[in-house]
Amino acid sequence: MTSEGLAVQADAPAGPTGRRGRRAADVPTLVERAREGDARSVARLISLVEDASPALREVAAALAPHTGHAQVLGLTGSPGVGKSTTTTALVRALRATGKRVGVLAVDPSSPFSGGALLGDRVRMQDHAGDSGVYIRSMASRGHLGGLSWSTPQALRVLDAAGCDVVLIETVGVGQSELEIASLADTTLVLVAPGMGDGIQAAKAGILEVADVFVVNKADRDGADTTVRDLRYMLSLGGRHSEAGQWRPPIVKTVASRDADNGIDQVLEKIETHREWLAASGEGQRRRSERAAREIEAIALATLRERMGDVHGSAALGTLAGRVVAGESDPYRAADELLDEL
Amino acid sequence: MTSEGLAVQADAPAGPTGRRGRRAADVPTLVERAREGDARSVARLISLVEDASPALREVAAALAPHTGHAQVLGLTGSPGVGKSTTTTALVRALRATGKRVGVLAVDPSSPFSGGALLGDRVRMQDHAGDSGVYIRSMASRGHLGGLSWSTPQALRVLDAAGCDVVLIETVGVGQSELEIASLADTTLVLVAPGMGDGIQAAKAGILEVADVFVVNKADRDGADTTVRDLRYMLSLGGRHSEAGQWRPPIVKTVASRDADNGIDQVLEKIETHREWLAASGEGQRRRSERAAREIEAIALATLRERMGDVHGSAALGTLAGRVVAGESDPYRAADELLDEL
Repeated sequence: MTSEGLAVQADAPAGPTGRRGRRAADVPTLVERAREGDARSVARLISLVEDASPALREVAAALAPHTGHAQVLGLTGSPGVGKSTTTTALVRALRATGKRVGVLAVDPSSPFSGGALLGDRVRMQDHAGDSGVYIRSMASRGHLGGLSWSTPQALRVLDAAGCDVVLIETVGVGQSELEIASLADTTLVLVAPGMGDGIQAAKAGILEVADVFVVNKADRDGADTTVRDLRYMLSLGGRHSEAGQWRPPIVKTVASRDADNGIDQVLEKIETHREWLAASGEGQRRRSERAAREIEAIALATLRERMGDVHGSAALGTLAGRVVAGESDPYRAADELLDEL
Repeated sequence: MTSEGLAVQADAPAGPTGRRGRRAADVPTLVERAREGDARSVARLISLVEDASPALREVAAALAPHTGHAQVLGLTGSPGVGKSTTTTALVRALRATGKRVGVLAVDPSSPFSGGALLGDRVRMQDHAGDSGVYIRSMASRGHLGGLSWSTPQALRVLDAAGCDVVLIETVGVGQSELEIASLADTTLVLVAPGMGDGIQAAKAGILEVADVFVVNKADRDGADTTVRDLRYMLSLGGRHSEAGQWRPPIVKTVASRDADNGIDQVLEKIETHREWLAASGEGQRRRSERAAREIEAIALATLRERMGDVHGSAALGTLAGRVVAGESDPYRAADELLDEL
């Protein structure tokens, strides 16, 4: 990296006149401030990666040397199982041990992620004023709740900013639980009694992605049945039955505003999983796989962008005309188009 | 094209012993036979493009000089509106005028497309033994009924085989009605009374893709209300209100096994639309756009294939390792990966 950062425009706080000033901030300075714990700089960096700004590549390069520290937790589950309450309880418990925590909420049903519609605000909610917590809502990729393509980049910002733990919360619908598992070191799957989650879990492949099962609302009827169902399904085999493999524990919780019963036990299981990841080499394997997927996705997006550039171009128009006239076929034309890129 | 075709293995009919023989057939011979009306050669060519066989590119090249003749009709609508019955009625009416007709059924709910599960059989059903009709079921891309990527290629086979009309039938769910409209010269949207289709149509953007509305089951209560609703929505504007633009007509039909009331009128509207396409230049524009999209899709698929080749490769592993170690960032790594391709 050269020391001349690409100057980027970022919103300054509203002045006393109510007019929002604008001021240039360079990427290295933003990264430096973010590392010192400046929440505003963290927010700006996430906005830069989220908006795919021209500074995106410079931001990624500036962050790289400072990444790799954060433990990444994924938290997923059907709507209504209590993801947001559990997230809040986990953050509270992690903060109590002195850890710096980042939260990326990609759950469209979460009160956190309402913020995605409001732009780039860092939302603090329960933890407002606590400089050891960043809570950031990410725009979801669609109504099925898929992770935004920029989630891995936002994760890198929080990692570089010195978060010890980054928690990614997303609703378990469609592909998102697979996506979150590919990002996270440890994936928590939340279920609640009486929601048929046990059966759904088996269908959705959640069994394959869960490192820790959390049966939330465990004070409700049917909690023991849910635990038994999960245990039975785990016993049926799959990867968990092999020697040396991780067997996902099942923890019962009652996370609410007032009581966090079971949350400490969840943290214990996360810690045990972290130790297993390190001892088995699986942790390093997951991180390499994560990086490889990310590189591939960016490469493919770059190619798609280049394709976008030729859309409507004279070259493509000419090639299409020759196909329509029967002088060429789409495969030959595609090869010729690729030669132009 | 050289005259040496890539020899491909194709199933020969089951012999008297019940054993299925195998015999090599070269692409130029298959194309020649298909053009002479040999249904089996048509089926084999479609299988070759559908399975993305190594001969795919040779097939595409061999077909090219013979394409551009067929009129392409799209037929879409919600499940239960009577798409298959209408397709059958349209085929019957077109055959009565002496036209050669191809049908590509991509509708997972269609009795035609059951055949997709049975492999590459050409299904004839009502038209069994009629050498002027090819009916082919295509595997759908997923439960949402999207068109298979190979649909455009199958269309080119039927076009080259001398079909005057190719009818693509698909269930109007998800993206498929947009995809079918991008393939077809004329898109028929089927609705039925009392199914709330009018409202759904507006939501799903069906108004934008329909060239002809067919209110099927018009002998049922509510048919006139459905017509009025559609007319009202069309009157609200959009592209149809501009001068020189096509205003989609609304035709009432009662297509059944025994009666095809209204089908002739549908064919009249299709003919009027064909004349408008020619006179306005829109027909040529649509075909160019179709070819351009197809070229782009193939180019992108080719790139994705090349990416697949590097997945798990030493190069990607090394790049991922450097990102994990913080020595590189995913964007730089992606650029380096692309340089390798």
